[in-house]
Amino acid sequence: MAILVVGSVAFDNIETPHGAVKDCLGGAATHFSLAASYFAPVRVIAVVGKDFTAEHEAIFTRRGIDTKGIERSEGLSFHWTGSYSGNMDEAKTLGTDLNVFETFEPKIPDAYKDSEYLFLANIDPVLQSRVRSQMPNVRMVCGDTMNYWIADHSANLAKVLRELDVLLINDGEARMLAGERNLVLAAEKVLAMGPKTLVVKHGEYGATAFFSDRSFAGGSKALRPFRAPALPLAEVIDPTGAGDSFAGGFYGYLASQPALTPAVLRTAMFYGGVMGSFAVERFGTERLQNVSREEIDERFKLFLEISHLEHAGV
Amino acid sequence: MAILVVGSVAFDNIETPHGAVKDCLGGAATHFSLAASYFAPVRVIAVVGKDFTAEHEAIFTRRGIDTKGIERSEGLSFHWTGSYSGNMDEAKTLGTDLNVFETFEPKIPDAYKDSEYLFLANIDPVLQSRVRSQMPNVRMVCGDTMNYWIADHSANLAKVLRELDVLLINDGEARMLAGERNLVLAAEKVLAMGPKTLVVKHGEYGATAFFSDRSFAGGSKALRPFRAPALPLAEVIDPTGAGDSFAGGFYGYLASQPALTPAVLRTAMFYGGVMGSFAVERFGTERLQNVSREEIDERFKLFLEISHLEHAGV
Repeated sequence: MAILVVGSVAFDNIETPHGAVKDCLGGAATHFSLAASYFAPVRVIAVVGKDFTAEHEAIFTRRGIDTKGIERSEGLSFHWTGSYSGNMDEAKTLGTDLNVFETFEPKIPDAYKDSEYLFLANIDPVLQSRVRSQMPNVRMVCGDTMNYWIADHSANLAKVLRELDVLLINDGEARMLAGERNLVLAAEKVLAMGPKTLVVKHGEYGATAFFSDRSFAGGSKALRPFRAPALPLAEVIDPTGAGDSFAGGFYGYLASQPALTPAVLRTAMFYGGVMGSFAVERFGTERLQNVSREEIDERFKLFLEISHLEHAGV
Repeated sequence: MAILVVGSVAFDNIETPHGAVKDCLGGAATHFSLAASYFAPVRVIAVVGKDFTAEHEAIFTRRGIDTKGIERSEGLSFHWTGSYSGNMDEAKTLGTDLNVFETFEPKIPDAYKDSEYLFLANIDPVLQSRVRSQMPNVRMVCGDTMNYWIADHSANLAKVLRELDVLLINDGEARMLAGERNLVLAAEKVLAMGPKTLVVKHGEYGATAFFSDRSFAGGSKALRPFRAPALPLAEVIDPTGAGDSFAGGFYGYLASQPALTPAVLRTAMFYGGVMGSFAVERFGTERLQNVSREEIDERFKLFLEISHLEHAGV
């Protein structure tokens, strides 16, 4: 079933201990789309500027991603400049130029209207709401956000949260959104804001899903969380987009399954980790453009091996 | 098979957001012994002062722990004062009075000499080495340490590390010992210092085992790590001794098994998490004194449920 994603398609200047790249195709919707494209058809709503060329578009279309919803505008695309150091667990943002995103009015092509899965990537919650309201009949809505919107746009964000089946954020964002340091209590507070399921990403330590009793995925043990590991990596070349790639693997897998069961959500958590682990192996989206289905299956098995007593392969 | 543990038996003054306790029985060897006692016979080598009463000793003996090796000395027992705030992920040490531990010369009772499993709890590495050298024929040696010894007693610690089958430390200690921020690279460096297996505790995020090719537990996939979850807890009353309780559950389970296989080590990681999760439910050792085998089994199942795709109970 098709996924409709709205979010940023951008150009990144990135510096990590492994090198630096300039004007590298990035943005939450880009990483998400590429990761999800291995599991389900993906359609993108975004805006780009004159600097977005046929070559950039081909990065999407080679993976079968529908780019009809990528609007071309005068001016430059969204640009982000950031750097990582030390353990590379957090980006230092050095510059954000919204450019064409400042006046973006998302329009949904008619051909996208039958999309059954909606993903609201990290973007102004006002835009997230606008897209959500144009897609009233989707089967599932999953969304992301970040500290900036939590701190300064909380009323707009609250409206989005009320409409979400799944909210996918990181530890710091969950604690900040709830105003609570204990992760379990923070999760309870966030679930009370609307999302039926909360997936909290812990970076190198994996991710935890928390379920409200309205979640399809909690099953009979609604309030028990589920934890998926991350792959311990000796080399992280570029963490940019790891969270969006997790979201793409997670949501792509959900959209590929006939039924939304608790077991499917749990497996989706593992595929999220798998796609996140590929994303960081190269700068930008390089690795996500070229991973094979066999590599994905193999790494999924590796995730089971490193976390399951009876899948130890010994 | 019996475990011999050498380490501190102490009295703690602890303050957490949930209250405060004074002169509460604590110490690494105490938490370790109680946690391990649910799995295997435990024998303790430590020194205490006049303030250690029959009542304190009964906390050990009620759990069947052999206290013959707890030496009585003039003066006061080791005292530790610490507090936790915020997310309670790190203790702030407010005072350390070594007292009788300053002149401790560990002596091993003859009746302990046939112990097959040796645990060197966090203590001066000189004392760890002295005990190790008196137990040349043990089946396995597992040890712990802390930032203080890593920073200022590295030559003594290096000697201990060369003799270890398993080193059990936390993230910060592993990165500090290796002088390396990336956990996988840090683990490689630490394994090169001697330990055949390294278990790194991540607090609320669980633990990861790293294997050298000399480890009994790596199996045919020697270099692949294994990750075990921690239980997400809404209420942590007192984190003191959580790591030692993890070690007790981990090592106790190992000592209870007829063969040291990779599968046994993986299962031991889960039992470590189980005992750590009980430890923090009450101040001091209160919970570890009174947990039942049924509660342990039930929580072990819960750990599988929250981490295993096919143990989801749905």
